Amino acid sequence: MLRRTVPRAFSSATSSLRGLPLDGTTINENVKSAKYAVRGNVLERSMELQRRMAAGEKLPFDTIVPCNIGNPHACLQSPLSFHREVLSLCISPTLASDHPHVFKKDVVERAKAYTAGLGGGVGAYTNSQGIPAVREEIAAFIAERDGHPARADHIYLTNGASEGVRILLTCLLRSGGLHDGLLTPIPQYPLYSASLTLLGGTLVPYLLSEGANWGVEMDNLRESLATARAKGVEVRGIAVINPGNPTGNILAEEQIKDIIEMAVEEKLVVIADEVYQSNIWKKDASFSSFKKVACDMGYTGAEGDERLQLVSFHSTSKGYYGECGLRGGYMEVHGIGAEVRAELYKLSSLSLCSNTIGQLATGIMINPPKKGDPSYETFTKERDDILSSLERRSIMVHTALNDLEGVTCNRADGALYAFPRIRLSNKAKKAAEAKGVPADEFYCLEILDQSGIVLVPGSGFGQEDDTLHFRTTFLPAEATMHETLKNLARAHEKFMDEHRD
Amino acid sequence: MLRRTVPRAFSSATSSLRGLPLDGTTINENVKSAKYAVRGNVLERSMELQRRMAAGEKLPFDTIVPCNIGNPHACLQSPLSFHREVLSLCISPTLASDHPHVFKKDVVERAKAYTAGLGGGVGAYTNSQGIPAVREEIAAFIAERDGHPARADHIYLTNGASEGVRILLTCLLRSGGLHDGLLTPIPQYPLYSASLTLLGGTLVPYLLSEGANWGVEMDNLRESLATARAKGVEVRGIAVINPGNPTGNILAEEQIKDIIEMAVEEKLVVIADEVYQSNIWKKDASFSSFKKVACDMGYTGAEGDERLQLVSFHSTSKGYYGECGLRGGYMEVHGIGAEVRAELYKLSSLSLCSNTIGQLATGIMINPPKKGDPSYETFTKERDDILSSLERRSIMVHTALNDLEGVTCNRADGALYAFPRIRLSNKAKKAAEAKGVPADEFYCLEILDQSGIVLVPGSGFGQEDDTLHFRTTFLPAEATMHETLKNLARAHEKFMDEHRD
Repeated sequence: MLRRTVPRAFSSATSSLRGLPLDGTTINENVKSAKYAVRGNVLERSMELQRRMAAGEKLPFDTIVPCNIGNPHACLQSPLSFHREVLSLCISPTLASDHPHVFKKDVVERAKAYTAGLGGGVGAYTNSQGIPAVREEIAAFIAERDGHPARADHIYLTNGASEGVRILLTCLLRSGGLHDGLLTPIPQYPLYSASLTLLGGTLVPYLLSEGANWGVEMDNLRESLATARAKGVEVRGIAVINPGNPTGNILAEEQIKDIIEMAVEEKLVVIADEVYQSNIWKKDASFSSFKKVACDMGYTGAEGDERLQLVSFHSTSKGYYGECGLRGGYMEVHGIGAEVRAELYKLSSLSLCSNTIGQLATGIMINPPKKGDPSYETFTKERDDILSSLERRSIMVHTALNDLEGVTCNRADGALYAFPRIRLSNKAKKAAEAKGVPADEFYCLEILDQSGIVLVPGSGFGQEDDTLHFRTTFLPAEATMHETLKNLARAHEKFMDEHRD
Repeated sequence: MLRRTVPRAFSSATSSLRGLPLDGTTINENVKSAKYAVRGNVLERSMELQRRMAAGEKLPFDTIVPCNIGNPHACLQSPLSFHREVLSLCISPTLASDHPHVFKKDVVERAKAYTAGLGGGVGAYTNSQGIPAVREEIAAFIAERDGHPARADHIYLTNGASEGVRILLTCLLRSGGLHDGLLTPIPQYPLYSASLTLLGGTLVPYLLSEGANWGVEMDNLRESLATARAKGVEVRGIAVINPGNPTGNILAEEQIKDIIEMAVEEKLVVIADEVYQSNIWKKDASFSSFKKVACDMGYTGAEGDERLQLVSFHSTSKGYYGECGLRGGYMEVHGIGAEVRAELYKLSSLSLCSNTIGQLATGIMINPPKKGDPSYETFTKERDDILSSLERRSIMVHTALNDLEGVTCNRADGALYAFPRIRLSNKAKKAAEAKGVPADEFYCLEILDQSGIVLVPGSGFGQEDDTLHFRTTFLPAEATMHETLKNLARAHEKFMDEHRD
């Protein structure tokens, strides 16, 4: 018999005699409480408008512009040829032998190498931690990026970065009435707040400083930690998103160093969300990983060195590849002992393995064609076209936002978003109150109804008290961006005019 | 600011002043307690042996034979041509236009239809519930299979069935000290026991009857329910695996009807794991879904009719497709109200969407080429070859197991496994005890060391007290099956000889 069966008796609970239906009152409360704004009310409303347009209704716009989510291919960004061709061949290996003229040599070779390492092709479950050959590729990429060694057995491939965050937080946050918490930036990507609610953990907020280009202020951070501890929260870790989502800031090495020092002192696991590491727009800026800075500081994470505990995340969904749908990603653990690594493996094995195409896409992402390879020229052209266009769009959006009445917006140094602050009149705030929605959501709904542009209210990410923001991507195609920004300006102006005090 | 931040104060907890490292003592206890035998000790040992063989060590066998997991492609089962070609074209849509002679017309058309419905290709996030066009295909498949209507908006595409089970159980099992439980068959697929442990739920076991070909006995089931309730467990649902894993039994409609009646009376959500619905080996037997039987009984699940609450699961990993690595699957909810459906949607949206290739593979699985289509003949031949070979192998394995000393094995009427009972001597049991492992695990480890065959101990699935079993797939390639079974017999004989009382 299984070890864990019906316990002898529970002291306090009494079950109902006839069971409970599954409905809104008997569902897990943590599920109900979790919020995920990126796919919340404004998106729901946009889907309704889409249906009404499809049914022939005339609206003030011709098309819905999805600026709510970093989903580049939905905004017509093209996939990279080499990447896709290798995946096609991995799925149908005979294509290359049957039609030898169709694929370039390096495409065929890469696909062959992956297929050989798969033992059963893309249709077989892989090692629960991911295909060993791909983990070796990732380790080599990290080593080259950081100038410090990386180990394939410290890497876990996941369905996008989100699954990695779920697995890690499931291990970190203890259940059963222990008040474990996570220092989380405000504003933050709502995966963190939602996961904390779901797992019964406590969000310990630390405010990013809008006045200092959304930087982390250490005094602020230490104060948040002290306050939470004084209230009985066992703070287990700190989440850092770099480059920032929704804020677009890039952390300087000095700042990363300060955070690492504090994490070591205070025994906090650093959760470094680095999925935007290839989206750097600020001139002369570059991305430094937490792993690199940690190793520079001497926290090598060698077996037994658990002074700094760090888990970093990467994804195929962002960068210049934008392969959101394939759900590829990985996490690298550093300073995490064998026992915990084994538990992370077990959690991964519960869903057997992440999808093979996403795993291979992750391999190709971090190991693209090299100089001299037949696909190199096409690859670099495709990559550079995407990156330079994104850079131009980031500037267009940031400039246009600052031109709006009552709006100020920090520059997006990295990532795919702008997070402007909006100042709304009392009349607007009262109108929102009358409708029972937060003022920023009211604003986003009105902009949507007028322009078809889907924004996300700042309240979904968290914002300083008495401030209002929204998040927009700068992903709409460059050819249409000018028009989109004009439409936004027109809708904004109308909103401001209609709600003057 | 976010609504959920640091609470004012916790009454009972005191946080540590300097934090806690993440290690074996500070990890979430539920994670530590969860067991997942399919990828447990025996598999670990097989990986070690593989490494030793690769390093040149001579072992009593030439190859590791993975009978531990239903992973057909790893056992050289070929993928279906139509399915893979459509996926290749979805990944690289220009292949068809650049090389018009390469693909059959129906392949090109299907890929075009999917690509058109994707709006951004396979690289874009989809609706969190899954691609609408694929959900429509699935609804049509279910309607045809069952003779009752199905709704696309009651279908959720997931990364394999495992993710669906996780999402559903997360909604169903309340946290915070409520003793919610799930009736679970013993033996069971350990995803259920592990998920329950992880979510803090209680496994309420009901024994399948080995003497009645692993059927469900209603008296037994009712007694388990009553016992659990008497102990204060709030039993929320019942899991049924049909065809059975690890048992291979097929439920007759009469049995399904009895279970449904009880679920309605006792307000239990039925969790119908039907991933083996295309693996039917028993002559003249057929698969009946819980949904079909429920609708036959008048539980139509129409909006507002929540008398019977049913969630059924399907997957691309089994059947004759065996596409485990692609992680495709879906769940269909029935009699579940809009509020809960919205929560299931929200949970899906936390990881944005399941992988697009798995979603498309699910669509192709349930909507293969039809008579008259250019790919129809190849498809039927490939399908029938796989199914007839699996049927022959199921008989070979079942017969060979019954020929072993001390072993009896029910016929596998369906699914991909045999679950024989083994009777071990006291000497063998004592040897296991001395090694600190359960007797069935000891047996499996010894068989592995002698033969290279990887089995899973019955204790990983649960078994009646004082009985011992193991699970084996019948997936090794037919050409090698005879040899594999001879090796198993030899290793078994040696084990029995060495452990005679």
